[in-house]
Parts: sequence; structure tokens; C-alpha cells
Amino acid sequence: MHKRFLEVELPIIQAPMAGVQDGELALAVASAGGLGSLPCGMLSAEQLTAELTQISQQTLAPINVNFFCHTPPKPDPEIEAQWRATLAPYYAEFGLDPGNIPKKASRQPFSHEMADALEPFKPRIVSFHYGLPEESLLQRVKGWGSTVLSTATTVAEAAWLEAHGADGIIAQGVEAGGHRGMFLSKDVTTQIGTFALIPQIVQKTDLPVIAAGGIADASGVRAAFDLGAAAVQIGTAYLLCHEAKTRAVHRTALKSDAIHHTVLTTLFSGGAARGMVNRIIQELGPMPDVAPPYPLASAALAPIRSAAEAAGSGDFSPLWAGQNGTGCREVSAVDLTQDLMSEL
Amino acid sequence: MHKRFLEVELPIIQAPMAGVQDGELALAVASAGGLGSLPCGMLSAEQLTAELTQISQQTLAPINVNFFCHTPPKPDPEIEAQWRATLAPYYAEFGLDPGNIPKKASRQPFSHEMADALEPFKPRIVSFHYGLPEESLLQRVKGWGSTVLSTATTVAEAAWLEAHGADGIIAQGVEAGGHRGMFLSKDVTTQIGTFALIPQIVQKTDLPVIAAGGIADASGVRAAFDLGAAAVQIGTAYLLCHEAKTRAVHRTALKSDAIHHTVLTTLFSGGAARGMVNRIIQELGPMPDVAPPYPLASAALAPIRSAAEAAGSGDFSPLWAGQNGTGCREVSAVDLTQDLMSEL
Repeated sequence: MHKRFLEVELPIIQAPMAGVQDGELALAVASAGGLGSLPCGMLSAEQLTAELTQISQQTLAPINVNFFCHTPPKPDPEIEAQWRATLAPYYAEFGLDPGNIPKKASRQPFSHEMADALEPFKPRIVSFHYGLPEESLLQRVKGWGSTVLSTATTVAEAAWLEAHGADGIIAQGVEAGGHRGMFLSKDVTTQIGTFALIPQIVQKTDLPVIAAGGIADASGVRAAFDLGAAAVQIGTAYLLCHEAKTRAVHRTALKSDAIHHTVLTTLFSGGAARGMVNRIIQELGPMPDVAPPYPLASAALAPIRSAAEAAGSGDFSPLWAGQNGTGCREVSAVDLTQDLMSEL
Repeated sequence: MHKRFLEVELPIIQAPMAGVQDGELALAVASAGGLGSLPCGMLSAEQLTAELTQISQQTLAPINVNFFCHTPPKPDPEIEAQWRATLAPYYAEFGLDPGNIPKKASRQPFSHEMADALEPFKPRIVSFHYGLPEESLLQRVKGWGSTVLSTATTVAEAAWLEAHGADGIIAQGVEAGGHRGMFLSKDVTTQIGTFALIPQIVQKTDLPVIAAGGIADASGVRAAFDLGAAAVQIGTAYLLCHEAKTRAVHRTALKSDAIHHTVLTTLFSGGAARGMVNRIIQELGPMPDVAPPYPLASAALAPIRSAAEAAGSGDFSPLWAGQNGTGCREVSAVDLTQDLMSEL
């Protein structure tokens, strides 16, 4: 019934991973028959147009364009000041002027401006993180005939997404790397493992369920299908691929023992996300009260991260990874995609 | 290669669940062809002899006898006093005399005294929680020809167990209900989901791996096998079975919305364990610094729990459950066991 609802040959989505990939990875996955994804939440409208123009010149296959749809919090000068005070020793360590932290363009929610840029391309698959955009935006997207996916981290979120017009549910188990798509609660104890999440969401909704979190190889794909998934979404395994833009410090960490210990942390953006433990997580704790709400925490940290990375250190970088790094391979994403599907 | 290493027809272990079951559940599972388990960590040597005598009169099938093998901490009067001070409002609420809290016999580690009681029965399967017992004890057990299983919650624990003489590894994903078998670290961020844990342990060891955590039905069993498991261990699904001794407040919670939110908590014993959120967890937090180390926290809480349960309330009870309660059914464990294996 849900066969080929992703409109591609293979029931696999390459997870959109803002900051570590662009259209090159998406195109490679598409050429192998999977659904490549373009993370758009950190692009301007101009950048989005440029990326989609380039992609459309190179493939006729569908590409999943992914946006955030959080409600931006109002910046609170007191919270921001406390956050910067917490980071002060690091500014000092790297010789940075804490009075001169650039206002970093942050993660932006999907907007009519972005919809304007998107509309000429009438993308066949549009996915969201943090729920769904407001009704007028959602109806624009659906009006183009796009299939709309969004992420659920709990059974309640899956039911909400179905009631509010999603066409498919990405069930994100707690194993998954990167940002949790949670939007009905900020309580991380509500986040459950893939093995428990998939069957419960499959039972609860009539929509096709895409399993995410901990899937690293062909046997994992098969297991996800056993649990009732109609497709899988895989991120971590693609991070070492030739076509990914994963930075050197991140690649190094993925190939080290650091991959064996990931945590949910709010340090890097204010939103809970899974990454490898590094120095700043060890020193401040993964979820300090002092971090401003998503996505505001990233701005004050950015210059420290940049200085550390320039010195070859990932001590202050978000080293996103899921709990199963065994699928990471330094190969083309074309080969990886085909291998992932080899047992189906 | 690992076929029938559990010496029973079906590759399924009914998880030993101290406090909610006795030999009756184990016998029912055994009669269906699975491996029933008897939790022995809260029994005296005399009780153990009585239970095993009764079981051996009713079946020739193997039964898994399960023991704890933690190193008991030295009680610290200051920590204990702080814990009781934290609980003082509850003593007052139930009219309990905080100066008269009975010294509760607590969870005991496996000992030569227990081995003496066990030896005449030469059990074919002996499993441990919290690592393995010291060498002389382990050698006694292995000397009877027993197959020795223990629980790993991380890849490192699996490697340790293999190096120290285990014959099989129970890979306990973070979804699992009840006590985490963690023994190399107390850091709960090291605990990973079943979907990520099983394949990594399978890759790391040559021993048969028994998957635990989040498995609730036949499709879950099949998925666990896809991930490389040689058998499965299932607990939560048995909690409503006729043959379980699950108390009324616990059964009521399992059938309520409470099943949708479990947390890892140290409140009830001092050791991290997964249970449904109830009043004491909400009021003190699931992992308060003030809880004495495993297994000491339980003594001071016991009279409060008893008083509350006598009033029909599970507000202070450990309501153990895993993250996937969809398998709980009020049926015989014989039928449940057979249904769990129906897709293999």
C-alpha cells in the first residue's frame, strides 16, 4: 500500500544533515535510487534557489528538501549574558573579544519567503523538523502536490502530525544523531528507542512510517521493515562518504573511539541533539540550564568553535553522530546506498 | 552454530523479574518451549531450595536461575540520614515513625551459601546481573556444566563478559524495563538503544547474543534476529500474564496511560532502572543525588510504599516497565510465549 510513496526506487532517505552536506550528497544518493535530502534550514532564499537550480540541472529524480519549523524564541538579554559569562574562560583561552561576538545568522523556520523560492521547483518531497509550519504555509506546499513528511519522536507527536496533515511520519528513535525533532515536549525522558518507537507509531497511525535511529547496514534496514516501517532514514552512516562536507575534526572523531559515546546535548544550539562527547560537553555538562533556547545557543559559541577548529580541534564543535557508528565508511554515497538495500 | 544453546525449543528467555514473579511464571514459559527464569537475588538459601524443589517436581525442562553479583556498598550513616530526611514528608503523610524503619533484607549478591543451595540442582542455565561473580564462584557454577549468561548494556561490557568467562551475552537495550545491568560505568548516557546495541555487540564478540529491550511481539522477535541476535529476552510483555505475581497497582498502571512514559530512575534501589513515572518520581526527580547507592535506597522507602499500596496507590512503588508496553496481555504465559515465536 505504501510502496514507492517516496517516489524513488529504494525505500531509503538520506537524512538531511544541516552543516555537513549540500546537494552533492543528495545527488549521489538519488543516482543510486534512494531519496537524497537537502537541508535548507540554514540557507538563505538565494542560496536555496542556487542549490535547487544546480540540483535540477543534474537530476530528474525527486530530492527531499528539509526545513525547520520551530517558533523562534525571543532573545533574553539576561539569559544571553549568563551564557556568555559561562563561555568567558573559553573566549580568554582563544584570545577572543567577548564584546565582539558577531550576530550569527541562525537556523530559520520555514517562511513565505522560502516558500517563494521553493515554489518554482515544486519539490515532490518536503520534510520538516519540529512539527509542521503554520496552516497557510503547509497548504502552499501541499498545493504544489508535494508529499509532506515530518519527524515524530513520540507516539503523541506522530498522532499530532497525522491530525495536522503530514503524509508520512519519520519515527526518530533516541539512537539517532543530530537534532531531536521533538516538538510537543522538551522532556528528553519522553524520547524512546527505535525498537520501541516504530511499532507503537505504526500501530497508532495509518500513515507510512519511516524508521530512523541506529540503522547502519542492510540487516538494520531489514529489521526496521520487520517492525513495520515502510522506509528508513539514515544519517550517521553517510558522514564519512566522499560526497559529504563533514569537516576534518568531525571525520577524525567518527573514526576514533569517540564514536562509542554520544549524548543528547543542548550545548550547541539550545535544542537537544545527539553528538559525540568532547571537551565542552565534559566541562559544562551536556544539558546545562544556562544554554539559551533553540536555536540561540549557537551564536555565542560560534567564534570559540571556529578558533578551535582552525587549530585542528573538535573540542568545541558539534560532533553529531548516532549511537550506531558501525555503518560509517569512506566510500561513495552511491555504493553505500546500494549496500544498505542489499538484503531487501 | 548457536542453535539451541539455551537448551530449549524456542530461542526466548522470559526475563527474570524479581518482585513480580516466582516459579509459576517460569514453569508456564517452560511448558510452552521457552526458557523460564527464576529471579533469585531476593531469595534466602532456604527459599531458593524450596522454589527449585517445587520446580524440579513439575518440569524436566531447563530453567534459568538469575542472581545479582554486585559488590555491596558500605552503608554510610550520613547518606542514609539525608535520604530519610528527604523522605520525611512522606513518613508524616502516612503516619509512619521515621525512627522505626525496619532494616529490610535487601538484594544480596550471589554467594557460596547460595551456590551450596544451588549445587544439588545443577541448573543448566545460570544468569547474572551486574557482571559476573568472583572467580571461585564462577568456577563452581561452570563446574556443574551450567551455561552462564550475563547482561551487557554497552559494547565494553560485552567484551568484558566474554573475556571473563560468560557463555552468552544478554544485550540489554535502553528500552528495557527494570534494572539496568550496567557494571563498568554508572553514567546512564552510556546506555544505548536495542537497535544500536545488538549489532555492535554481535560484531564485537563471538558469543551468542540475546536481545533485550523493546521486544513486544513476534515481529520484534524477527527484527532482533535480523540484527544478529541468537535469542531474545522479554520481560514487560509478561507482566500482565495470569502466572505473574505483578501487584494490583502495577497491573493498573500497565493498563493506563502511565505506560507511555517510563524513565530511568535510581529512586527505588539506588541502581538505575526503568519504570513508569509516578508521584515520587515527579516530586523527587528520577535520579536524585540523595538516593543511597544500590541496593541501599530501597530500605527507607519500603514502609512508605507499603502504606501507599495498602491504600491502593502506586505513587511510591517501582512500576517497572520497558518503553514498549504494546505486548502486555492478560493471557497465560503459555499462549504469550507461543505467540511471540509465531513469525520465526
